[in-house]
Amino acid sequence: MDNFNFYSPTEFVFGKERENEVGKYVRKYKGTRVLIHYGSGSAVKSGLIDKVKKSLDDEGIFYTELGGVKPNPRDTLVYEGIEICRREKIDFILSVGGGSCIDSSKGIAAGAVYDGDFWDFYSDKAVVKNALPIGTILTIAAAGSEGSGASVITQEKTKLKRDTGSDILRPVFSILNPMLTCTLPAYQTACGAADIMAHVFERYFTNTEEVEITDRLCEAVLLTMIKETPRVIADPDNYDARANIMWAGTVAHNDIVGVGRSQDWNSHAIEHELSGMYDVAHGAGLAVIMPAWMEFVMNHNVMRFAQMAVRVFGCEMNFEKPELTAKKGIDSFRKFLHSIGLPVNFDELGAKEADIPALVKNLGLGDGRTGGFVKLSSADVTEIYKIAAKAEICEG
Amino acid sequence: MDNFNFYSPTEFVFGKERENEVGKYVRKYKGTRVLIHYGSGSAVKSGLIDKVKKSLDDEGIFYTELGGVKPNPRDTLVYEGIEICRREKIDFILSVGGGSCIDSSKGIAAGAVYDGDFWDFYSDKAVVKNALPIGTILTIAAAGSEGSGASVITQEKTKLKRDTGSDILRPVFSILNPMLTCTLPAYQTACGAADIMAHVFERYFTNTEEVEITDRLCEAVLLTMIKETPRVIADPDNYDARANIMWAGTVAHNDIVGVGRSQDWNSHAIEHELSGMYDVAHGAGLAVIMPAWMEFVMNHNVMRFAQMAVRVFGCEMNFEKPELTAKKGIDSFRKFLHSIGLPVNFDELGAKEADIPALVKNLGLGDGRTGGFVKLSSADVTEIYKIAAKAEICEG
Repeated sequence: MDNFNFYSPTEFVFGKERENEVGKYVRKYKGTRVLIHYGSGSAVKSGLIDKVKKSLDDEGIFYTELGGVKPNPRDTLVYEGIEICRREKIDFILSVGGGSCIDSSKGIAAGAVYDGDFWDFYSDKAVVKNALPIGTILTIAAAGSEGSGASVITQEKTKLKRDTGSDILRPVFSILNPMLTCTLPAYQTACGAADIMAHVFERYFTNTEEVEITDRLCEAVLLTMIKETPRVIADPDNYDARANIMWAGTVAHNDIVGVGRSQDWNSHAIEHELSGMYDVAHGAGLAVIMPAWMEFVMNHNVMRFAQMAVRVFGCEMNFEKPELTAKKGIDSFRKFLHSIGLPVNFDELGAKEADIPALVKNLGLGDGRTGGFVKLSSADVTEIYKIAAKAEICEG
Repeated sequence: MDNFNFYSPTEFVFGKERENEVGKYVRKYKGTRVLIHYGSGSAVKSGLIDKVKKSLDDEGIFYTELGGVKPNPRDTLVYEGIEICRREKIDFILSVGGGSCIDSSKGIAAGAVYDGDFWDFYSDKAVVKNALPIGTILTIAAAGSEGSGASVITQEKTKLKRDTGSDILRPVFSILNPMLTCTLPAYQTACGAADIMAHVFERYFTNTEEVEITDRLCEAVLLTMIKETPRVIADPDNYDARANIMWAGTVAHNDIVGVGRSQDWNSHAIEHELSGMYDVAHGAGLAVIMPAWMEFVMNHNVMRFAQMAVRVFGCEMNFEKPELTAKKGIDSFRKFLHSIGLPVNFDELGAKEADIPALVKNLGLGDGRTGGFVKLSSADVTEIYKIAAKAEICEG
């Protein structure tokens, strides 16, 4: 096991109607002048923003607001948020929405107290050393941003999708009410599930040996997702299934399932180019990319894929030909994703095979290689996109 | 799933030689005048305390020290520590040892800033509202106190063992170097393993349905312990096995494996009377009590015990007679405990069946009942002690 630090100081406030306590938590974490940041109209239409305002009013806390966060959140709105924070002397960001909204809030929180351009943090020109405190009310189980220090922003003019991360950006509290996710369309629910599972797999495929505890915790989250996701697709109002998924989404990404070893993250990087170019849902892109990536790298460690197949997908171990078990695990994953309504190839996603050279170029590897489980060249990534483009469900 | 808050703000600093960074972490968490609190001479003899002092010296941090914590830590030493803190204007407690040492440190941390008698917190007369910050360097994987807000102290004159808990008592940092546990005798290692598994089982047996994510996380820790414990018993210097156990011990008790549902904790309460009366190791007492408790309550929810048997101990499910599977799971647990060198009945533990009425009396239920998975009367507890007294390993 490798040396590590694990730090997840966020207070998670989980359950029915907990959003009504938001004023109390903002006060607890010393917020006095709040920017409420949210996305599409649904947080307004559903009455959630009104509830939030009432709770802040009850505590006598000043607030202003900035809506309009889109999926794959843009730098342009972050600049707008930073401007408001400075003008209104904001000392707390309250993010009401999903991963895009929280990621956007993190950009604002870091940028508001930084003299330079916030994009410096996303282009490796600066490290986040200070930020306004962030609280969240999560409305979709997916990104895990409510418990992580990570943020991904897309630069409007270049369509480049880039990330940053710091413990300083971890929310001080996150309110998770699974009821708020019951009204999500099935497709968005499924995209969230794919994202959650991908966050685990990015950590599951490691070159560090003998980290059984982290392996088992990864498998715990994956098994939960496999049980609960089909239940919410069939029965969107199933509270317990929603609750299990929502908490699994947080556990999947605060790094408790990743410590003590190397991680991968190439599927995320490869997918980011897809959602950057076509503005498709990140989870849908992952459903297409991740099984393709698995097929491409499987031979690097067949037994690890066999372990996934047996422990996560309940495949029978083939002791004579473990590679068949490994492959069966990958097929099971793709079949699962398809069963919950997700695309498994470029056609179903709305991507074009002809764009592969452009996707590879945007990834910007050039003659270099990525890090991760298997270090990938541009040629390798091309091959992965090709596998993804043509993937089909294997019957049997 | 029940509503819950989950809050685990401790920064875990894990791996080889991390204790050499302790000065840096004390500084990070604003310690300027430190009480180093430790147990037996082994922390001194091994050179660990010298390393700690050097690291504090390097940062120019003032310290004084108080050794002498015993297993089942006493109130008398806590009073002494409180006295030192007040006299020396201590603003940080650095706990170097196992669960007993950290529990003692929590008593001191709460008592030092409290006007009344610190025992008020342990006798339900007051709630902890303030405490000095605590950092830990853990030397035995067992109690989970390094990541929890819980503390158990024994009152010297009455031999009563009582607990308290508060998020305020969670350490601000905990340094976990698995190497420090390699010199532990096999028996102490095994006792620690039993304690870790018991912390999970206390949370596994719940009356709240449909909390799959927490079930699976529990099972992840248990499966890890079943794999890794025999390895360290056979090969005490196996770093990776030690590391998996040490981290499992923390995960088992920061409540990530307990959220969203009712918990039990009767086995702990019943065991506390044993270690209070005989001064035996807590983990050894649990090895005797917990399987007996399981047998006594099994019929309350046979399918939950069958789930444990199948998922944790790899038993084959008997679909016609699930109660046989359930019983087999309990037998497997007892057999596992015995295989790592732990007692399974009163004789092996050094307890006397004739003392059962006194043990039951000390527990103090009177005509009342406990809470938990099954609410127990004094008669029930008597029965559990009797099962524990005579327990044997089932062959086959």
